[in-house]
Amino acid sequence: MKKSIGAKTIVYPNPVFIIGTYDKDEKPNAMNAAWGGISCSNPPCVSISLRDATYTHGNIVYRKAFTVNIPSEDYIREADYFGISSGRNENKLATSGLTPVKSELVDAPYIEEFPLVLECKLVNTTELGLHTHFTGEILDVKVDELFLDNGNPDIEKIKPFLYDHSFMAYYGIGKRLGKAFSIGKDLKD
Amino acid sequence: MKKSIGAKTIVYPNPVFIIGTYDKDEKPNAMNAAWGGISCSNPPCVSISLRDATYTHGNIVYRKAFTVNIPSEDYIREADYFGISSGRNENKLATSGLTPVKSELVDAPYIEEFPLVLECKLVNTTELGLHTHFTGEILDVKVDELFLDNGNPDIEKIKPFLYDHSFMAYYGIGKRLGKAFSIGKDLKD
Repeated sequence: MKKSIGAKTIVYPNPVFIIGTYDKDEKPNAMNAAWGGISCSNPPCVSISLRDATYTHGNIVYRKAFTVNIPSEDYIREADYFGISSGRNENKLATSGLTPVKSELVDAPYIEEFPLVLECKLVNTTELGLHTHFTGEILDVKVDELFLDNGNPDIEKIKPFLYDHSFMAYYGIGKRLGKAFSIGKDLKD
Repeated sequence: MKKSIGAKTIVYPNPVFIIGTYDKDEKPNAMNAAWGGISCSNPPCVSISLRDATYTHGNIVYRKAFTVNIPSEDYIREADYFGISSGRNENKLATSGLTPVKSELVDAPYIEEFPLVLECKLVNTTELGLHTHFTGEILDVKVDELFLDNGNPDIEKIKPFLYDHSFMAYYGIGKRLGKAFSIGKDLKD
């Protein structure tokens, strides 16, 4: 029996995207965004939503670029910290000890220690309410060589994690359950 | 050392959203969408991206409504099947044996057997390229009572899963790693 719990922003899984930007003075910043996801295959795009009160929001409007950095479990403390401090008041990357690298493709920094990064050029901005929805075209994906398997990113090596908004907790990735576009084939036939 | 792998749509985690719609003849349909995520807190919104070749795309344009249904691991076969067949040619819900329930809030069906469902009214449509990006305002969330913990959805009971686009595989949810907005506090102080 289903019970109504009201109009809440609960889905599974929510990502933990660390957004890399430069401010007007070229100070690199990193923030933690749970609202977002891939939004187009061609051109490849990823969308993220930010409140305009955030420092990163202003940086994206000004630079028209951002990176999406996927942290591994090993950096859960740093990723969480990026979500509870503002770049307006501090240099979060310096405090974290992580290394911002200037992208050669877009006007934004990525985080060297995070296993997978997307370099994005802003292509669409939509005001939805409290959040502005930014869509970036993915110009390149960079992955640590250690985390590749036959040239493809390996989720089991990368060990990303996800955000549970219901209880405000992080969870790791579990077991491989089956092959997509395959495990349901018997129902089709 | 980071290696460029080109402009790919790889992030972690990608969701497995089952989108519920009605066609012009009130036939319920379900499709599997991996591109999407929460996009605004107030009003609460979720965005999904679909190719206009899909049957669901036309249904959303016509009905201006959809549901987002989160399947549990127990329904991985049905969820996968919804992604490899088209409602244009068959009644996927009938074939799957799952139960479409008419929403009282929006002009779309949700799936009774799936633990968590969002009822959404279309509020924004943006053409990004191959995919159309639909944003729905979440009017209500309904959860199976068995999967609530003190009134909140419990990810460990719901057992959602995620899609790895790199190797086209599904993965379960792993261990709880820590409390959000908390585990990185020592870096802030």
